[in-house]
Amino acid sequence: MDSETIRREARSALFTGPTAGHAPGMLQLNLVALPKRYAFDFLLFAQRNPKPMPMVEVLEAGRYESRYAPGSDVRSDLPRYRIFMDGHPTGEVLDAREAWCEDFITFLIGCSFTFEAALERADIPVRHVEEAKNVPMYITNRATEAAGLFSGPLVVSMRPIPAEELVRVTAVTARYPRAHGAPLQIGDPAALGIRSLDHPDFGQAVTIKDGEVPVFWGCGVTPQLALQQAKIPLAVTHAPGHMFVTDTKEEIVGLEVL
Amino acid sequence: MDSETIRREARSALFTGPTAGHAPGMLQLNLVALPKRYAFDFLLFAQRNPKPMPMVEVLEAGRYESRYAPGSDVRSDLPRYRIFMDGHPTGEVLDAREAWCEDFITFLIGCSFTFEAALERADIPVRHVEEAKNVPMYITNRATEAAGLFSGPLVVSMRPIPAEELVRVTAVTARYPRAHGAPLQIGDPAALGIRSLDHPDFGQAVTIKDGEVPVFWGCGVTPQLALQQAKIPLAVTHAPGHMFVTDTKEEIVGLEVL
Repeated sequence: MDSETIRREARSALFTGPTAGHAPGMLQLNLVALPKRYAFDFLLFAQRNPKPMPMVEVLEAGRYESRYAPGSDVRSDLPRYRIFMDGHPTGEVLDAREAWCEDFITFLIGCSFTFEAALERADIPVRHVEEAKNVPMYITNRATEAAGLFSGPLVVSMRPIPAEELVRVTAVTARYPRAHGAPLQIGDPAALGIRSLDHPDFGQAVTIKDGEVPVFWGCGVTPQLALQQAKIPLAVTHAPGHMFVTDTKEEIVGLEVL
Repeated sequence: MDSETIRREARSALFTGPTAGHAPGMLQLNLVALPKRYAFDFLLFAQRNPKPMPMVEVLEAGRYESRYAPGSDVRSDLPRYRIFMDGHPTGEVLDAREAWCEDFITFLIGCSFTFEAALERADIPVRHVEEAKNVPMYITNRATEAAGLFSGPLVVSMRPIPAEELVRVTAVTARYPRAHGAPLQIGDPAALGIRSLDHPDFGQAVTIKDGEVPVFWGCGVTPQLALQQAKIPLAVTHAPGHMFVTDTKEEIVGLEVL
């Protein structure tokens, strides 16, 4: 399915699954929507924590179409949404229009799918894709930099990388600053307070082969934990793995800030 | 003078001049401070226009110390400030504490001094420095992307570059995305609506030698024009050329977003 078809089928609840592997080469984005009175603090939270929350686009209240996907509606075009009430995730919906408030500001945030495609083009293996799993994610002992109500731990994703590819994996992912960019940590889970790689906090554990090193990147789940901590009355996000698929080639993301 | 001495002497009104060439190698920043109710729109305006307004740090209301300059006070440590009332620049002051409101949010924005030092290290000439002038700046026919009250034309700075150095000048400045980054335009003033390079809108004209090409970068004067257009009741900025000098090496700026 091409990106427009994915959005159309998501809108009519015909497509309700994860978007990984769909519309290859097209930019996919995380979504957070919340009331305007929290918007400055949230945008500042992202500005202070650009590795887990690289801000790609912000839509003001009453705007639902992304510049990266003409004709889109962010309230309905994702396959699945999470609703947060007073910080608690209350469940998932296939269409967020009913939950959406008039004064919601929408934040579209870069996603690691962008750099994973680049890694595959560079012949660097992406284990959780090979094993058809969701990427393993871990809550670390590092705090994000707070802004207003928003704070909480940094969440990272992990990919096992052959030791001889550590330089290339860093160089390739550093090219995508709006898709989490270069790693945050190479090779030392304990330095991040991670006790066992076999027990991720989100996603699924993956095989680490002999000669491979665990490498950690900033993760888009970080703002979802901050939303819970902030206990704001109502917010909408994408459901993990169920991203906003745009019509824009992912290669462009970040070029505008060079 | 080192950076701490510059700030201390600026605070006591002993140093009141432009900061170019002082504390070489240290990060210098543009300043905009305005009431909290305009802060979301202004931060969003910067997010949408990262080339002229690369946001480096934001201080919440009641905070005056930059993380990049321990012990600093942004209300007094710049050599000279501009005050805007209802969009009109009403004059310059050496100390902004009297004008400062309790609910002001402070925005510290990257400055081209950072990449000019890098150009000099790469043996690429910076003409306005050679000629001891202020860099020539031009109002273009390109609109910024508006956010709330903030809009207006994109302002660019211009440096003449030998034709054989155009690739290197682009590559070097692209390394500093939080100091305006790569050029916006190479070689065609008319494409930006600039009629005469001899008549800049701000700063001073510089010599363009045979074999040199005019190269244009996003300019930190852009938000000052937007402030005028927005007609907000009260705002404080640095006076052009009179920057906030930090204790942090400029080489680090932008590394945190890789």
